[in-house]
Amino acid sequence: MSKASFFSHEALYGSGDGLVYEGDQLREIAFPLGGIGTGCISLSGRGSLVDWEIFNRPNKGSILPYAFFTMWAKKGDAAPVTRVLQSPPQTPFSGQGSSRFGGLGFGVQRGDGSGFPHMRTATFRGEFPLAEVGFCDPTMPVEVKLEAYSPFIPLNADDSGIPVAVLRYYVRNPSNETVQVSIVGNLTNPIGYGGTGEMSAHFGAKEGLGQNVNAYVVDKGLRSLSLTSEKVTPDQGNYGSMTLSTTWEEGFCQECWLRGSWYDMMHDFWDHFSESGSLPERHYEPSADGLTDVGSLGAQLTLGPGESAVVPFFVAWHFPVFTKYWGDIACACDSDERPTWKNYYASQWDSALDVARYYAANAERLYAETKRFHDTLFASSLPACVLDAVSSQASIIHSPTVLRLEDGTFYGFEGCHCDSGCCEGSCTHVWNYAQTVAFLFPGLERSLRDADYTHNLSDDGHMGFRLQLPIGADPWGFHAAADGQMGGILKVYRDWKLCGDDDWLRNLWPRVKKALEYAWVQWDESRDGVMEGIQHNTYDIEFHGPNTMMGTFYLGALRAGEEMARYLGDNAAAETYRRVFESGKARVEKELWNGEYYIQNVVSEEDDPKYQYGTGCLSDHMIGQWFAHLVGLGYLLEPDHVRSATKAIFDHNWLSDFWEHANPQRIYALNDEQGLLLCSWPNGGRPALPFVYSDEVWCGIEYQVASHLIYEGFVDEGLAVVKGVRARHDGVRRNPWNEFECGSHYSRSMASWSVLTALSGFSFDLPKGQIGFDPRLKDEVLHSFWSTNDAWGRFSQCAEGVRLEVAYGAQTLSRLALPQWAGKLSEAAIGGKDVGLSWDGDTAVFAESVTIAAGQTLTLS
Amino acid sequence: MSKASFFSHEALYGSGDGLVYEGDQLREIAFPLGGIGTGCISLSGRGSLVDWEIFNRPNKGSILPYAFFTMWAKKGDAAPVTRVLQSPPQTPFSGQGSSRFGGLGFGVQRGDGSGFPHMRTATFRGEFPLAEVGFCDPTMPVEVKLEAYSPFIPLNADDSGIPVAVLRYYVRNPSNETVQVSIVGNLTNPIGYGGTGEMSAHFGAKEGLGQNVNAYVVDKGLRSLSLTSEKVTPDQGNYGSMTLSTTWEEGFCQECWLRGSWYDMMHDFWDHFSESGSLPERHYEPSADGLTDVGSLGAQLTLGPGESAVVPFFVAWHFPVFTKYWGDIACACDSDERPTWKNYYASQWDSALDVARYYAANAERLYAETKRFHDTLFASSLPACVLDAVSSQASIIHSPTVLRLEDGTFYGFEGCHCDSGCCEGSCTHVWNYAQTVAFLFPGLERSLRDADYTHNLSDDGHMGFRLQLPIGADPWGFHAAADGQMGGILKVYRDWKLCGDDDWLRNLWPRVKKALEYAWVQWDESRDGVMEGIQHNTYDIEFHGPNTMMGTFYLGALRAGEEMARYLGDNAAAETYRRVFESGKARVEKELWNGEYYIQNVVSEEDDPKYQYGTGCLSDHMIGQWFAHLVGLGYLLEPDHVRSATKAIFDHNWLSDFWEHANPQRIYALNDEQGLLLCSWPNGGRPALPFVYSDEVWCGIEYQVASHLIYEGFVDEGLAVVKGVRARHDGVRRNPWNEFECGSHYSRSMASWSVLTALSGFSFDLPKGQIGFDPRLKDEVLHSFWSTNDAWGRFSQCAEGVRLEVAYGAQTLSRLALPQWAGKLSEAAIGGKDVGLSWDGDTAVFAESVTIAAGQTLTLS
Repeated sequence: MSKASFFSHEALYGSGDGLVYEGDQLREIAFPLGGIGTGCISLSGRGSLVDWEIFNRPNKGSILPYAFFTMWAKKGDAAPVTRVLQSPPQTPFSGQGSSRFGGLGFGVQRGDGSGFPHMRTATFRGEFPLAEVGFCDPTMPVEVKLEAYSPFIPLNADDSGIPVAVLRYYVRNPSNETVQVSIVGNLTNPIGYGGTGEMSAHFGAKEGLGQNVNAYVVDKGLRSLSLTSEKVTPDQGNYGSMTLSTTWEEGFCQECWLRGSWYDMMHDFWDHFSESGSLPERHYEPSADGLTDVGSLGAQLTLGPGESAVVPFFVAWHFPVFTKYWGDIACACDSDERPTWKNYYASQWDSALDVARYYAANAERLYAETKRFHDTLFASSLPACVLDAVSSQASIIHSPTVLRLEDGTFYGFEGCHCDSGCCEGSCTHVWNYAQTVAFLFPGLERSLRDADYTHNLSDDGHMGFRLQLPIGADPWGFHAAADGQMGGILKVYRDWKLCGDDDWLRNLWPRVKKALEYAWVQWDESRDGVMEGIQHNTYDIEFHGPNTMMGTFYLGALRAGEEMARYLGDNAAAETYRRVFESGKARVEKELWNGEYYIQNVVSEEDDPKYQYGTGCLSDHMIGQWFAHLVGLGYLLEPDHVRSATKAIFDHNWLSDFWEHANPQRIYALNDEQGLLLCSWPNGGRPALPFVYSDEVWCGIEYQVASHLIYEGFVDEGLAVVKGVRARHDGVRRNPWNEFECGSHYSRSMASWSVLTALSGFSFDLPKGQIGFDPRLKDEVLHSFWSTNDAWGRFSQCAEGVRLEVAYGAQTLSRLALPQWAGKLSEAAIGGKDVGLSWDGDTAVFAESVTIAAGQTLTLS
Repeated sequence: MSKASFFSHEALYGSGDGLVYEGDQLREIAFPLGGIGTGCISLSGRGSLVDWEIFNRPNKGSILPYAFFTMWAKKGDAAPVTRVLQSPPQTPFSGQGSSRFGGLGFGVQRGDGSGFPHMRTATFRGEFPLAEVGFCDPTMPVEVKLEAYSPFIPLNADDSGIPVAVLRYYVRNPSNETVQVSIVGNLTNPIGYGGTGEMSAHFGAKEGLGQNVNAYVVDKGLRSLSLTSEKVTPDQGNYGSMTLSTTWEEGFCQECWLRGSWYDMMHDFWDHFSESGSLPERHYEPSADGLTDVGSLGAQLTLGPGESAVVPFFVAWHFPVFTKYWGDIACACDSDERPTWKNYYASQWDSALDVARYYAANAERLYAETKRFHDTLFASSLPACVLDAVSSQASIIHSPTVLRLEDGTFYGFEGCHCDSGCCEGSCTHVWNYAQTVAFLFPGLERSLRDADYTHNLSDDGHMGFRLQLPIGADPWGFHAAADGQMGGILKVYRDWKLCGDDDWLRNLWPRVKKALEYAWVQWDESRDGVMEGIQHNTYDIEFHGPNTMMGTFYLGALRAGEEMARYLGDNAAAETYRRVFESGKARVEKELWNGEYYIQNVVSEEDDPKYQYGTGCLSDHMIGQWFAHLVGLGYLLEPDHVRSATKAIFDHNWLSDFWEHANPQRIYALNDEQGLLLCSWPNGGRPALPFVYSDEVWCGIEYQVASHLIYEGFVDEGLAVVKGVRARHDGVRRNPWNEFECGSHYSRSMASWSVLTALSGFSFDLPKGQIGFDPRLKDEVLHSFWSTNDAWGRFSQCAEGVRLEVAYGAQTLSRLALPQWAGKLSEAAIGGKDVGLSWDGDTAVFAESVTIAAGQTLTLS
């Protein structure tokens, strides 16, 4: 019996009823709201705003004091009820952190309004890119829920990169009487804040603050509390602006809270608002040095019996100057100042008010298109745990792990320290695993290739595995990463196949070729298709001697190289790559196959080098094969061996609990959790000091293996791995929207997208005008999301036929690969209009290429 | 029906079965282990060591990496089982804090061995000064529990001030086979660490570290891993030494863990110990600059079927140099270096090894006397919630809130920031509330009076309310605190009555008188017995105009002054004080009584001054009366009014939940908790900006009010308040051993001791050779702890008579005040030997003064 039966069939395959969290599960939730490369604010499980990471660096645990929303409602002549729109603070109540007069030993954080009456309970539905907090309070005369999001529209990177967090409050009057309702949001003016450390300006002045200006700005259809500074200048790193805005017309604005001492301003705010549902106007001159002001923006409405309304607020920000805060100061200008550049978003908007106006003018479309993506993805018959894995990790694209450089180039850290990126440079080996960007924003993914092959390649073909900034800086001279360098070739291949842009490939090809052939300089001088010598890799150490982790990457790169070379007419190269591939394959099978899986043959100039795996069963040891499946290159090694090896990874490395696991390394799974070890030694031979992460559990590897298991047909096992990861991120144990490894929002977890491509058996060959599906789920009816560089939508199959819906963009196709059974289908149509259809094996061939526009469906019946 | 019925009778009065925590309640537990003025290490609910606050300042959240204990057990020929002696880490698992490569986003803290197999569950029994962690693991062949403590022996301040934390592991073999057992503890050598910030020396070197030396030192009956540094010199603030020691003879020591990279040393430790139950010897030269070493000390034993053993380990430390790290640099030496002095404990021991040897030589006695105190206190029929409140807050005396200066003077912060005291100077107004030290270590309490009346009094009688250090520095010139200054007089009175040392009083009297009469300089020029004008106080603001918070302190001080003056023959002063008292009492009754309680008559030169309470019902408004009851001065105002006012505090200010409470201030009680507000306005009149803490809940005030309610006969109400406080400190919400206010281990909470004196109706007049009891609990059988400057023990009453047991010290008595019913008792005896007895009202009078030695009992039957 497979260990996969640890989970029930329902747990693995169930579609559930949405991804809903409640009670203790609200504790760890922080759901990122922001654009690509804009930083983000997170929505907590309680409905509060936490982790203000909008100041051009991560900022975990940061609180913008007094930034909370409060509702007042008065039913008929009854006394009004006022509630902060957050569920109760959760234990412990001792205070957190070590700030003076505010950390542990000073009680519950009060700046978020936790001392005021709040809603009694909340449930959190988190289906990225949409989050919904349903509040409940028996005394509140209206029902209220919050839907929060930021525009996330695959293929539209710019509209998915708006520095805005949207909070839509749904209010309904279930009673028979008219209810007056008022919702107020507050925001502290943080302009001048440096981006790290505490943001409090109440006790103790803060350098940078002062001359802060809060102003009420009313446009047609838009009211904003605008926050600026007269002190910080546009060349300074902390320059910027923010707004709290609403398109709700009736309401009020108090530009500044009472300037008093002690807790005066909180008293003044609550006493006025809870009495009247409004706040009087108050204008001050710019703030004194080191200090700032809080302001409030309110929306008022009257709801008759049974009436409801959506009251939208949004926070927009604009901090244009990105400072390279890490690494050595390296600036051509010979200055000791750190390099700076402009965020890409700052090239689109001039200020937060400009952002707010753009959002307001496009709000309806942006919400509709974001929701369309959500609905298309979730209108899937994929298991709930897979949708959870796929959607939640797409949030990394809205997290501070990613940047967009001034020219629009996409850039990624590996993950996030609490106050800085960790680690720099769109790391080639970590980003090998990440697939989400490639499938949702292929243009951004290609910009990673462009940057690497343009700026990060030395003359000999050595690619720095960390792109240096500012863009154009010299490549890093450390060892190339064997996995990162070879993975790059596979990524070029994938990105070309997803877009069909031959010019793009042709332009990169000479440098791609050089990067591939660097293997012969560094790792395979003999060109026998097997890497030897020092192979630096994603475990931050070097493997010595032949192994299939590097080996399959290398074989995959050779095959991808062969394909690309042949396509571009570089037949000599194609034949060479093929020859080296065949040689390598043969040697691997001969030297490394142990009858169940492939081992490492440790060969080194050192005696017994540290940090190897030798006879171990390495979870990543088939990684190149996974990538080959993903991009349609097929088997790199003996199929039976590959299947055995993939299954062996699950059998040996997946633990259904960790009680007996002795791990001296980092702890990512423990106690009663489930997870996949990086390595185990089922046949003995564990080195005294095996490679440094061998006893750990990494989500990104788990998704890679899960996807590969599914590609090989081990669906139960693959889903068990996925379920294990997500069960560890249940809101109690960890934040569902933060799978961390070496830091938060770790990019490797975007391997989760490959679980979707595996389950749907999605293939793509756009140079040929072809996509395809070969579902691994054996359900009669299957729906799955799909995407290319041109469009995204939903693929469905049932006994009667298949449907390819385009929800966004337009997809031009000549061919559609389908499972064998579909060969019986004889008619194709788009929007009722017949399309000529023939079959080439299992591939439907259209008489001429067809274009399916957004909203249209191609049916085969 | 009184709100006190919110709690069941059982909840209020039940004696329970020990103070036991389990499951989620283990989360917040941190139980201080250390001596008076030595700092402490805390024991977590899981059995791990946390909060290493031994480096002469608070250090919340600090971890000494690798300091954990592990047990190995091998039953017969079975495979050995190895477990870290901690229960499982509790959620969340995302990591905490913001340290690089170790904070949030890096998983569970691994330095405490959490990645290794650990015990499956634990229960924590916490009855200060003893803590017990009962571990359970189904695979472990022996039973194991941990008893942890540091010597705490009332009246013996020096032996209660040993810088040592003792961990006694009880091991029992319940099986029919012999079991080999090994327990190993590890300690990182931290000498050179600066006292704040991270202690990791693994990634990244630390200034201060280097030239660290770990040595195995074997004495007769004592084996120690000694940790020193050859780099830090005795004049430096970070100078010191530590040991991990055991009196268990068989065992091993590995002075240094493997010096390797990455996780090598943890691998090496676990692999060796889990295989063999031992670690090989390893000696290195002193550590390289910036680095240090970890060492291990093991104890090995063989347990036959049914056999058991106690394996004691202890950590001793010695950091002699205390640096005044706060405030302005003020040093007579004209240097810009911060003042330093020697900790008192450093005058008793020269090094940690010296401490360890002292502890080992006296371990049996120190444990027995500490346990005797525990057993005497807990062998009481007082309700469990009271024993909890009384014992848990005594732990403040072992916390970093308190210091002992070089000459032995006791000194207290108010509480603790995470890395510094908060706030300085044995604050007269906060320490007004604290009673525990006065009753358990009266000599230390008197040293506070000595310091204040010697160094902290200006010529005009103004007392700084924060004693300045180094001792002897000029008094602080800010407003005197009206409550602190008057409370001081009552404290002198109390301390004299508890010790009967007339010389002590006589010596202080001229300065006490001056301090009392400073009221006529500052607050009552008219000498009418009512304070007016600016009255700075414990709310960190000034009250204006007559009020009974200052008023009752003032009336109490006048009465105490009268009594002391009369005793010392200063009859003129006595008569003056009486006259002023009578005048004040009359005016208060006339001006401030509102028919239910006493209000403030706001009179100020300002119009409508901020931060007053006016018509409010202030929880502290009878505080001087409480103190008067405590010290036996009787009623200061009309008894009926006092009773009404005290009851009104409970009726108006005690909340059985906080759902509707709107608090813009600090949050110490919330949601479904119970607590006593500092103030409410039942008759309206709440100022727009009332005094700054008015909406808060302070444990220390709650105990003051609870005690006073009990003195007035409102026992249900008093216990409800106590139960409410302790229910908030249940291990889930807050740490039971950390009642915080303005910081952790807040000294005001030591008001809890007065709940014990109120319930037992303990009175003391040692100048007359008299103590007494008048229990408020109406049980037939009552047992209660009592203490004076000379002795402590247990008082019991039952239908047949009363018993006064002396458990420690020796009590000489001439008189014993008892409840009225006791007048029927006709025979007195000590150890079976009759004592002549007569009655003076309700007071038993002995023919000649008797001395009851430790272990003896005085019986009246």
